[in-house]
Amino acid sequence: MPEGADEIAQAQAILTPTLLALQRRIDGTFVRWAAERSAQEYQVPAFIAAHELARTDYLSSFPHLATFAAALDSEPKNVAAFAQRECVNPAGEIQATKLEPLRYVLTPAACYHFYAHLKHQDLDAPRYLTTCATCFRREASYRPLERQWAFSMRELVCIGSRDEVVAFLTDVSTEIDRFVAQIGLPVAWADATDSFFQPTKNAKWWLQRLEPNKKELVFGDGLAIASINYHRTYFGERFCITRDGQRAFSGCIAFGLERWLSAVLRHYGGTPETWPAAWRE
Amino acid sequence: MPEGADEIAQAQAILTPTLLALQRRIDGTFVRWAAERSAQEYQVPAFIAAHELARTDYLSSFPHLATFAAALDSEPKNVAAFAQRECVNPAGEIQATKLEPLRYVLTPAACYHFYAHLKHQDLDAPRYLTTCATCFRREASYRPLERQWAFSMRELVCIGSRDEVVAFLTDVSTEIDRFVAQIGLPVAWADATDSFFQPTKNAKWWLQRLEPNKKELVFGDGLAIASINYHRTYFGERFCITRDGQRAFSGCIAFGLERWLSAVLRHYGGTPETWPAAWRE
Repeated sequence: MPEGADEIAQAQAILTPTLLALQRRIDGTFVRWAAERSAQEYQVPAFIAAHELARTDYLSSFPHLATFAAALDSEPKNVAAFAQRECVNPAGEIQATKLEPLRYVLTPAACYHFYAHLKHQDLDAPRYLTTCATCFRREASYRPLERQWAFSMRELVCIGSRDEVVAFLTDVSTEIDRFVAQIGLPVAWADATDSFFQPTKNAKWWLQRLEPNKKELVFGDGLAIASINYHRTYFGERFCITRDGQRAFSGCIAFGLERWLSAVLRHYGGTPETWPAAWRE
Repeated sequence: MPEGADEIAQAQAILTPTLLALQRRIDGTFVRWAAERSAQEYQVPAFIAAHELARTDYLSSFPHLATFAAALDSEPKNVAAFAQRECVNPAGEIQATKLEPLRYVLTPAACYHFYAHLKHQDLDAPRYLTTCATCFRREASYRPLERQWAFSMRELVCIGSRDEVVAFLTDVSTEIDRFVAQIGLPVAWADATDSFFQPTKNAKWWLQRLEPNKKELVFGDGLAIASINYHRTYFGERFCITRDGQRAFSGCIAFGLERWLSAVLRHYGGTPETWPAAWRE
């Protein structure tokens, strides 16, 4: 094994049957909350086209987090040249020949697909949506379950009028509070900002500080296991989505499933008998 | 939208609630077959480290299919230079500055993770495993559900002695035959080879032709919706897995879930009332 090269691979936890079952029960709670609010469940793609994502300024705001899907230029001589060389060097690095132009970004947040999907639509009622997607974010360092390059994100999303979105976020937030109190999970809400690149140079980061629109549910000594995000008309404007002719508002609640798993294991221990009743069987 | 640049994105189908529910019911059938054979279910990572994958010669045999996880070199000036330029050009291409060395391959087949996971182990009983993973394979062209760059693969895997693996593959194959006969899905088994790069120049392709070890379940005019793969000791040797001290054999049955979805829609139609009873509710 090349030194250090397996660090990220090891931080991509394989979930054993017991932990996978627990993660599914945790997710089942969020899916139930979604269903109780008539949210429709979708499966979203693994990639988002760069030109769609560009509408959101994601790549200029979070360039350090993005992962691109790269492949060899398909010209046969180029592929043959790769196949004939040592494809992976002793440091674990792929010795790529010429790459195709990069056009796709591995999903950075599950809900982006929904705004692209509803582009140029006028909604005559609020839309409630949910999905669970593998999301990709580069980090300075990795830790299994808690800080993975790729992780599972469950999102509950509302797109509608200002009142509809605010009511939805408030309602789900109350549901979360009730639930964590019931199971006794030690968490607290905190104002948060997104992880902008060079934040103090970014007007959007300053705006988030002045008009907070993101709260994180923090477990223990700083593990954010959920976030509530009020986008105002940011995505409505960029994807030309309206609600009865007016620019649509949107908001989402995101749950990092592997982090919930870690929080449960850290707080209740590794044996199923001590997990919250709702997640035991 | 840049001309043509959205072709792949559009081939990455968003599954609507009705289709997602159907795909889950289809997968539920395969999961039941796995459970009836005491297969343990895992969740596997999105990436596999290139140096692990290199044990299998995947990159030299299938270089034209591979997708790498690419990210900007994290040196702040390099990231800043990217953020300050037009990140995506009018053709939809990401104008990347320097990239990090490529070290990770997006999962090309779900079962590779199992061989890496069991590396250097001696098994005192056969191992039956299952997982559903998003797998990534480049193609010359794409079609929603049927030929996607990223797709959902359910695998049932056996690692054990020669007899154990052969018995497992035969058993599941019989189960598939019984099931497709029951629901009346028009399919046929066909000997197949893997999609080697420059196949006639590859000794492994010739070996597959001489000693067939892959069968595909083909729907309609050529859509392979499942495959049975008998690896003999190929992975056992490369990952140093033994069964009671002898080099382990392995085999897997793989189901392309979006392709099953497409086959059901094409054969039974788009309305739930006409779907097979097992998948209707």
